[in-house]
Amino acid sequence: MTAIVIPEGSLFGLDNLPYGVFSHAGGAPRVGVRVGDSVLDLAEALGDEVFARPSLNAFMAQGHQRWVQVRQAITELVSGEATGDVAAAVYPVAEVRMQLPIAVADYVDYYASEHHASNLGRLFRPNAEPLMPNWKHLPVGYHGRAGTVVVSGTDIVRPHGQYKAPDDPAPSFGPCRRLDIEAELGFILGTGSPLGTSVPCDEFGDRVFGAVLVNDWSARDIQAWEYVPLGPFLGKSFATSISPWVVPLLALEAARVPTPEQDPQPLPYLRGSQPWGLDIALTVSWNGQPVSHPPYREMYWSPAQMLAHLSVNGAATRTGDLYASGTISGPAKEQRGAFIELTWGGQEPIEVNGEPRTFLLDGDEITITATAPGAGGGQIGFGEVSGRVLPAH
Amino acid sequence: MTAIVIPEGSLFGLDNLPYGVFSHAGGAPRVGVRVGDSVLDLAEALGDEVFARPSLNAFMAQGHQRWVQVRQAITELVSGEATGDVAAAVYPVAEVRMQLPIAVADYVDYYASEHHASNLGRLFRPNAEPLMPNWKHLPVGYHGRAGTVVVSGTDIVRPHGQYKAPDDPAPSFGPCRRLDIEAELGFILGTGSPLGTSVPCDEFGDRVFGAVLVNDWSARDIQAWEYVPLGPFLGKSFATSISPWVVPLLALEAARVPTPEQDPQPLPYLRGSQPWGLDIALTVSWNGQPVSHPPYREMYWSPAQMLAHLSVNGAATRTGDLYASGTISGPAKEQRGAFIELTWGGQEPIEVNGEPRTFLLDGDEITITATAPGAGGGQIGFGEVSGRVLPAH
Repeated sequence: MTAIVIPEGSLFGLDNLPYGVFSHAGGAPRVGVRVGDSVLDLAEALGDEVFARPSLNAFMAQGHQRWVQVRQAITELVSGEATGDVAAAVYPVAEVRMQLPIAVADYVDYYASEHHASNLGRLFRPNAEPLMPNWKHLPVGYHGRAGTVVVSGTDIVRPHGQYKAPDDPAPSFGPCRRLDIEAELGFILGTGSPLGTSVPCDEFGDRVFGAVLVNDWSARDIQAWEYVPLGPFLGKSFATSISPWVVPLLALEAARVPTPEQDPQPLPYLRGSQPWGLDIALTVSWNGQPVSHPPYREMYWSPAQMLAHLSVNGAATRTGDLYASGTISGPAKEQRGAFIELTWGGQEPIEVNGEPRTFLLDGDEITITATAPGAGGGQIGFGEVSGRVLPAH
Repeated sequence: MTAIVIPEGSLFGLDNLPYGVFSHAGGAPRVGVRVGDSVLDLAEALGDEVFARPSLNAFMAQGHQRWVQVRQAITELVSGEATGDVAAAVYPVAEVRMQLPIAVADYVDYYASEHHASNLGRLFRPNAEPLMPNWKHLPVGYHGRAGTVVVSGTDIVRPHGQYKAPDDPAPSFGPCRRLDIEAELGFILGTGSPLGTSVPCDEFGDRVFGAVLVNDWSARDIQAWEYVPLGPFLGKSFATSISPWVVPLLALEAARVPTPEQDPQPLPYLRGSQPWGLDIALTVSWNGQPVSHPPYREMYWSPAQMLAHLSVNGAATRTGDLYASGTISGPAKEQRGAFIELTWGGQEPIEVNGEPRTFLLDGDEITITATAPGAGGGQIGFGEVSGRVLPAH
């Protein structure tokens, strides 16, 4: 018997142990770990002030060896192997309020699904090759707005902006009319690297602390008008939601798979000796109804390759850097992780709770969940990233 | 007579008073103000711990009214109107080490010079209209890497990356062969705005604390290959240098001018009641030889419009946000703020110290300086942003 009750079949067993930042009864935010349906207060349980902080950053900055030690200590405490009464440090998940788990340093968003990039290419540039010539040579990405990364549960106000249909003589301004989601996985850097150095693929496992679910809310009409030639800006920068529980990379060993075959072979700096594809299965629910099942294992570029690429020019990296995969879309229609793909630019509505739907309406709620194989032979969970659309101000 | 000697004709008289972060004799970084050739230690002189910090952020967050008060207090102290011995709080500029003045929150880079955007359009897309259809309707911009904003004097290691000439069958990897600069002006947000709200043009003067010189180092070969469709990434993210002295917006009143005529008239959210063009004259020196004189007053979009645009979708802004103008280029060849323009893609070398030059070689040093009209009828200075190119690792 464990010191904390873990319900049979829980996605938060001892093979998961995700970290988050919680507050209880209006108290100051602090670091906890999720076990079953409980949150263990780590500053209290382990007697270490590094966890009495409003973000995971200080703990993450202590490095990989320390992450291994703490995971081991938590395991022993919860499994009852270590002495110590954890009861006073445990709260039911339903009684805490989850906060943004990290202070985000830089945020980068990739475009690593071949199916997504091809679909978007067909939709945004119907008269050209869907994949740009560079796409299979490097993981295409761009910087997003770190200051608008928000935690799951934050309401999303419909953004205003400029848009222009091809036949309109001039742009209009108003509330976004093509509000969309992007179901993604995000990776959080635990330890950074100095300016002028780069991080090889094989350092991914040492430097990346864990993963979260990401909903990269997207205003397609704003994006389509603004994005040439310098890329997405206001079409994305109004909000990016992440899940509150950071699943440690240490918990994803059983989920590791090869990426799909990469042809042409990438340049040497993008070749690692270890496979870092991940068998993570996502589900997107629209007002409670599952509408898509994006498979992370289909992603063309691995997160190790993304990290190697973003630092190959000597760019410094920092504790708290977040980089997301880009929309996860599989080959099948029901595996597409954005509504612009799922409804083919709004031309092929899907049925949600009996209504034909294309883009998001005010009041809609989107929830993304995910599971992966755990070390114990069962499944581990990512919790959820959820957000509701409020009317434009 | 003033309490600190200000040399005749100094660009750092009482009408300037720029803020920076300095360290002296290996001590902890703290906030100072520049007066003539001296630095006044503000924590010491004003007895306020908000200045005993390694960045301006805490002071900036106190807001516009406080900035006015502190400027007044410094003026009285330095001019000798206030009692108090400032001598113990004064260091010669030559004896201090300047630091990055702000903790950068988000970094955005615009593209606000019509001459630059047209030149780049001709060079990057020779068979198309140089300006994209959106360019005169919104200030085009994108997010850059906040974690690689460095202070003047930081060496720039030549970045590695992928590039591919149009006729090459596949990309190559190696040190950048077309390393360039972009002479820009950067604006620093003093007080932020919450998620879901926007900042009107007319709040620019209240929220923006000051301006710095920016050198947005650019790897043109990497950028040309990577930038479609999501914009510049590794071609820019290896380093962005800023000048250490933040010239307060309060010191730029005499520099205000109307922007060039904007036709078509911008949408209402981009119309302010006050002109925020700025008559700031830059000089770019290459190994000590002036090679270009970019005129900021020629910029099509004003910094007030840039701020209104970046927040019109409800994106939160934060103390320490930095947004840069994009390359400042005037209509004349000798006013172009990037070497790709000045040498027309490397096809028309310019003479630097007797040698024909196109892009940057290892060992080259670039220095950008600027002056503007001050309130006293003379000129105020921005100091300089300088950087030397080191060989690729």
